[in-house]
Formats: sequence, structure tokens, C-alpha cells
Amino acid sequence: MRQEKEILALNAFDPRSLDGSGGAHRPAVDRRLRSFGTSSVLFYRDPIEMVRAEGVWMQDAQGRRYLDVYNNVPSVGHCHPRVVDAISRQVGQLNVHTRYLNDVVDTYAERLLASLPAEIDNLVLTCTGSEANDLALRVAQAATGGTGFIVTETAYHGNTAAVTDVSPSSRPGRPLASHVAAVPAPDIYRAADGDAGGRLAAAVEHAIADFASRGIRLAGMIADSIFSSDGVYADPASFLKPVIATIRAHGGLFIADEVQPGFGRTGDALWGFERHGILPDIVTMGKPMGNGFPMGGMALRRELLEAFSAQDKYFNTFGGNPVAAAAGLAVLDVIRDEGLVENARAVGAYFRQGLREIANRHEAIGDVRGAGLFIGLEFVSDRAAKTPAPEIASGVINGLREHGVLIGAAGAYGNVLKIRPPLCFSREHADMVVELTDTVLRELHA
Amino acid sequence: MRQEKEILALNAFDPRSLDGSGGAHRPAVDRRLRSFGTSSVLFYRDPIEMVRAEGVWMQDAQGRRYLDVYNNVPSVGHCHPRVVDAISRQVGQLNVHTRYLNDVVDTYAERLLASLPAEIDNLVLTCTGSEANDLALRVAQAATGGTGFIVTETAYHGNTAAVTDVSPSSRPGRPLASHVAAVPAPDIYRAADGDAGGRLAAAVEHAIADFASRGIRLAGMIADSIFSSDGVYADPASFLKPVIATIRAHGGLFIADEVQPGFGRTGDALWGFERHGILPDIVTMGKPMGNGFPMGGMALRRELLEAFSAQDKYFNTFGGNPVAAAAGLAVLDVIRDEGLVENARAVGAYFRQGLREIANRHEAIGDVRGAGLFIGLEFVSDRAAKTPAPEIASGVINGLREHGVLIGAAGAYGNVLKIRPPLCFSREHADMVVELTDTVLRELHA
Repeated sequence: MRQEKEILALNAFDPRSLDGSGGAHRPAVDRRLRSFGTSSVLFYRDPIEMVRAEGVWMQDAQGRRYLDVYNNVPSVGHCHPRVVDAISRQVGQLNVHTRYLNDVVDTYAERLLASLPAEIDNLVLTCTGSEANDLALRVAQAATGGTGFIVTETAYHGNTAAVTDVSPSSRPGRPLASHVAAVPAPDIYRAADGDAGGRLAAAVEHAIADFASRGIRLAGMIADSIFSSDGVYADPASFLKPVIATIRAHGGLFIADEVQPGFGRTGDALWGFERHGILPDIVTMGKPMGNGFPMGGMALRRELLEAFSAQDKYFNTFGGNPVAAAAGLAVLDVIRDEGLVENARAVGAYFRQGLREIANRHEAIGDVRGAGLFIGLEFVSDRAAKTPAPEIASGVINGLREHGVLIGAAGAYGNVLKIRPPLCFSREHADMVVELTDTVLRELHA
Repeated sequence: MRQEKEILALNAFDPRSLDGSGGAHRPAVDRRLRSFGTSSVLFYRDPIEMVRAEGVWMQDAQGRRYLDVYNNVPSVGHCHPRVVDAISRQVGQLNVHTRYLNDVVDTYAERLLASLPAEIDNLVLTCTGSEANDLALRVAQAATGGTGFIVTETAYHGNTAAVTDVSPSSRPGRPLASHVAAVPAPDIYRAADGDAGGRLAAAVEHAIADFASRGIRLAGMIADSIFSSDGVYADPASFLKPVIATIRAHGGLFIADEVQPGFGRTGDALWGFERHGILPDIVTMGKPMGNGFPMGGMALRRELLEAFSAQDKYFNTFGGNPVAAAAGLAVLDVIRDEGLVENARAVGAYFRQGLREIANRHEAIGDVRGAGLFIGLEFVSDRAAKTPAPEIASGVINGLREHGVLIGAAGAYGNVLKIRPPLCFSREHADMVVELTDTVLRELHA
């Protein structure tokens, strides 16, 4: 299986590709590499120097504008004035940890919890989705007494040591830890029998039996309901029901990683798991939560947090500070006041329809899928055989960049464009992307 | 040994202590507990509702002002206008990940690396000190091939699963993981032979031998050079030299956790390890780095990062975003322009001198120690026997709060006041704290 290492390479800058003469950005790239070394991950063969952004648009140092169809963090739009104002006002008034009472923090917590099912009544605020998932794994282990986790084969859940263990896409070519089992993602394009849930539940059942044979007790399963890095699998809605039932039957917990689908992106509701009609045990969140202000969180049933607190202390210095809370409140306000969930649903459906229309002209488009403004566009070299075509995905990514559109790829084979623009994306923006994709595919003769 | 669980209780709010009638803040406390449940950690028996802060002062909802001698995050002063301006300007212009080039980010990286020894030439930016330490542990393991870590007995290095393993103070009453060994902190007050370094090095040597006997190879040692949660041990400067030599002799790396001592607090230099004349392999940072904006970082030798990158991919979504970089640059500018390192040195020395003078009148003061504006004030019930007196520390913490001063405790016995105000603290502020401590000790007849 093609892993994240190669996927990233599809539209990543490779320092080895720079020749001696150097491109336009060679000095800036050298500068970046001098400080950040091998941890540097720049997009594109010739990286872009960004200087400003607004709404769905970004602008580089040469004044060129790019339509942003990639960035899912500035979810209510780059530099949204209401979020900017909220941060600017609060950072000048009070920015401190949660060991004092503060109305902004408690108001935010109540607003956030009110958006979740009533059973999920407690919250811990962190600074990143990784921290939230790291904590969720510990809670699941403390509450169940188990250690084993089930994930999908190309899952990504974050960057701490413990979360990297449950992120196969971050460990290219390395065996999984013994307490982690990976099951195939619910690929409804290739295994098109319509029973994505049944197949996933059976794979989970098998993984639990394998755990048992090795003396490992199940702690739970962690999954994001849109299967982002696996390649974007959304339908049929509710396919997670038999999966969560299987996990529960074996005493495990289900952690809904809402870092990517959450906050309205999937269009039907604020939370991705709602499409599936399930009640997770733990819900984690991050990326769009503060529209770029570093914040994350874990919401869960009170008794699970109590089980964890009985054995471990947890405190997060920056987590839930009043500036994060103010940013988070502004994000929730904008989502409500600008109708962004409904916009994601309507524009997402319109966008997929447009992509399906150009699929009639381009054999390379194997599938168009997704929910709301999280869309997967899968390229194949043979429609009947459904042969993954990462080289076409790469060509489209770089071609769209030339036409001023930012986009990226995902999936086990790196052949799926992941389309996840800011949620204020309009039909006109969708038309632009559809037309330019059509143009680039014609240029590529695909 | 008294652990963090009980230490926190010294000045923490205990929900069980509220009677049926409820205090002034009962509704606000109930509200906090409803959302945050057992993860809530409020200070004081009757918690404070904070609404604003400026410089070294905080203000509660009733308009009462408090002199802040506790908070080490808003290190250049609460809501410093230059930091507020930098954040407000950048958050309205561009706030995105590091996969595009951006001048602010690269400028910040260069400024930060220039403040470190030349050998430490690469940087990874994270959102918290916990994330930085989590990554540092992984780097040390990848670079050495070992797994074992040595820490001090009451150390705290952060809140992820992996970092909690090396934070004995977060695991009250639970055995350490097999790959972690805890050595006694360099308590130069109780073992006053002046050879803190020799004793610590010998304990480290012993721990490495114990690892070896169990087939565990050394990865390294992680310590903060001021031993904050152990009880603040600073002298004699350079006592870490034999310790780092021992670690190196056994192939391990030394991780300097600068989350608490860094950015000028210890007064002699920007970094705490500089007092010891040592060159760490990895330097981690957090808390004061953005004066409250969530950011952290790991600086290290290029080849260590390369060893890690060869086997694992790391990317941090919010880490090193332009807003964090702008905040971090403003913090470095203020430290330089306001002479805060020198201020920490001079006011810290003056502060300790004042505390030593009142120690002549109060038998309960066993020791005054520290470096710069990180001061430990140790209370004992018997000066000759040096019997720890956490009840006096608790009385002073709560008494000072009544007099409008915020302060907290640390140490294995919870009997050491940790004094770590914003670095813009003046002699007049130090005088206030000395006089009020004198008053409170008289009120306590201590």
C-alpha cells in the first residue's frame, strides 16, 4: 500500500529537485531548510511564498491570488473579521490558564457542549487535535482497562508519540505497535456492494478476535466519520452504526475524531458523526475550532472523565484560555449567522454535481464522492479496473496551482483529490474549480 | 514522598469543601464543574473570577487587584501592548500552516536559533511545551536506539501520554513505566555538602546500571535546569556538568526542558542551561514563548533531526504559524528592548535578599534560593531538622491572596513557595511581597 510518505511527495517540494541554478524561490527555500532542516514540509516543486489571505482567497509575495480549496483550518474564511476582532479584543484584556474562573471560558464550554448530544456533557480543552486525541486514548484505556485500538489502514489522527501509534499513515513501512490493529477503510468505490458498514464491522470483529488471541483487551476504535486520509468515504450515511455496535459489544469505546469533519464541513450537521446517527463515547476536535487559533478539545460522558481523573491528573497550560474561548465563540457565531452548515451542504452538492458532469468527458475521473464541502475526486487510469492514478492526481494538483487554485491529495494510493475549501465557498467558486479541473485534465489529455 | 496530587491541593479549590449555603462564587463554580467536571483545577478554596490583567497586575470581577507572583506564561507582562499589537496585526493578515514560505516564520526561526549555541542549528515549532517534549523523547529514542529516560523524582514535563510517563509528579501513587528511572532532585538545602552535581551524576550512573541490568538501553535524560516542580534548585551554577558528562558517556542525550527556566527568567542569560555552562543535545521551550499565545518548540542539532526524520514524519498544523511567529518575535523584542534578562537578575537578587532579611525574624523560613526571578522559599517546622512544613506554605499562599498577592507552591513536600512573577517585576513589587509575607507569617505566628 502506498503510504503517506509518498502521498505527501505528490505535491510536496523536494529539495533534491532544485538544480544548481535555483528557481525564483531558491534563496527563500534555502533559508527555510537552514532553520527547519528535515522537518520542513513545503508544498509544490516550486513553493509559494504567502503574504496574506481573506475569505477563500490567498495572495503570494508577487501579488498573485489563489483560490483556496485546500485549507480546512480557516474554515469560516481566512482572517474572518469577527474572529480577528474577538482575538484582538481578548488578547488585550486577559490571556491566562483556567485555574481562575472566567465568564468567556465557561460561556464557550456551554455553547460547545450544547451543540453535542446531551449524553456528552463534559469537556477538556487542549491546544491541538493531537493533544485531544492523545488524551482520548488515555481516557479510553483508563475507562475500559483495555489497551488495544482499532484504526483504518491509512488513518491520521495527529502527531504525539501515542497518537502516531494509531496513525498508520505517519509510519510508512514500519510495523504497527502490538496494541494497534488497522482495518481497511470503507472503500465504497472499489467494494461497491453497498454494505460498507457490514464489511467494516466484520473487519473490526476480526481485529478484536486477533487482539484476544494475543491477550490484548480492547480499549476502543478511533475514526473520523469522513475517513479523510483514507480517501474520503462518506456514504451510505449511517454505515458506522454496525461498527460502533461491534465495538460496544466487546466493551470498547468509540472515539469520533471530528478534527477534520467537525464544525459543519460535512454539511448535514455541525458534527460528522451525526450523519451516521451514532452516539460516540468521546468526541475530539481541533483544526477549524478557532479558525487557526491553536485550540482543540475532547468532549465525553462525565463518568469516562471521572474514571480517568481517578488515576491521572491532567492540566493544559494554554488549553481553554480566554483568547481561545473568544476565538471559538466567534467561530460558532459565524457558522450560525452565515448559515455555513447549510452552505456546506448546498454548495457541496452543487460542486459534486459539477464534477460529475466533467467526469462524462474525462475517463480519468473514477469517482466523485463526499459530504458537504469535504469532497473526494478519485483518478484512475482504467475505469473498469479502477486502477489508481496518482500521477494524474499529481498533474491536476500542479496544473491547478498554475491556474491559481490550491488543492491536495489523500488516500491509500494518493490518487484522490481532497477538496475542502473554507465553508464560505460559493457556487461561483465551485464553478471555477470545476472549469479549471476540466481545463487541466484536457491539458493532461486525461 | 508527597506527590503533585497533594501539592495541588495546598492551594486548590476542593468542591467537597463547599457547604450547602455556598460561597460568593458558588454559582460560577457550579457552572465550571458542570462543563469541565473532574478535569477542573481551580485555585484557592474560594476561587477568583478574573476579568483583566496588565503588566504584573490582575483584576477580578469585583474590581480587586492582585499582584501576580505566580504566572510565568505572561512573562513580559500581562497583555503587553507590543505582543497584543503583533498578534492583532498578523491574525488579520495571514494565519496558516508552514507548508508555504512566509517571511515572518523564517525571521522568527532565525532570531530564536541565533539565541542558542551555534551547534543547535535546527528547529521544529509546536503549539505547546508538552508537544515539544513529546517530540524530543521520540527524537532521542530514534537518534540513540535506546528507550530509557532518566528524570528527577518530582519532575513535570507536560501532559501527553509519553510525557506523562516521564513526569512522576503527574502519576501520584502509580509506579513508573519500566523505561523511566527517577533520581533524587539536587536538594542542596538538605544534602548541603555542596556537591549537588556529584550526587546527581552518581544517581544517574546508578539508574543507567539498573536500566542495563533490565536490558534497557539509555535514550537520555530530561531535566529543567531550575528543577521547578522538584522545589527550585539553582546552585551551585554548573552542577549539571558532571551529570551531562555521565549521560554522554553512556550514549544518551541530554534534553534541556526550558519551558519554565527559558526566555530570561533565571536572569543570567536567555536560557537556563547557560548558567550551568553545558551544551544540551535538545532544547525544548513553551510557556513564555508567545507570552500566552499557544506555542512551543524544539531546537536541536541537525543530525538528530535527520535521524528522526529518516523513520518518522512529523507535521504540526498550528505549529509555527505566522501569528505564533509574530507573537514570538514581539516577545524576543520586548525582552531585549526592556532589558528583562538583566531585570530578572537584579530584581531577583534584591528579592532574595529581602526574603533572607525577614528569615531572621521567622524560624519557619528554612531556605531562600533560586536564580533570577525563579525563587524558592522553603518553609520548615524545625530549622535544625529541616522538617518540611506544607501547612505553613498553604497558610502563606492563602494569606497572601487575602492581601492581594497570587503565589503557588512546589516541591516534593509542597512546602516551597515558587516565586516566578512576570519579568517586568520591579524592586517596589518585590518589597511589597516581602513585607506582606512578613505580615502573613506574623499573622500565622510562624
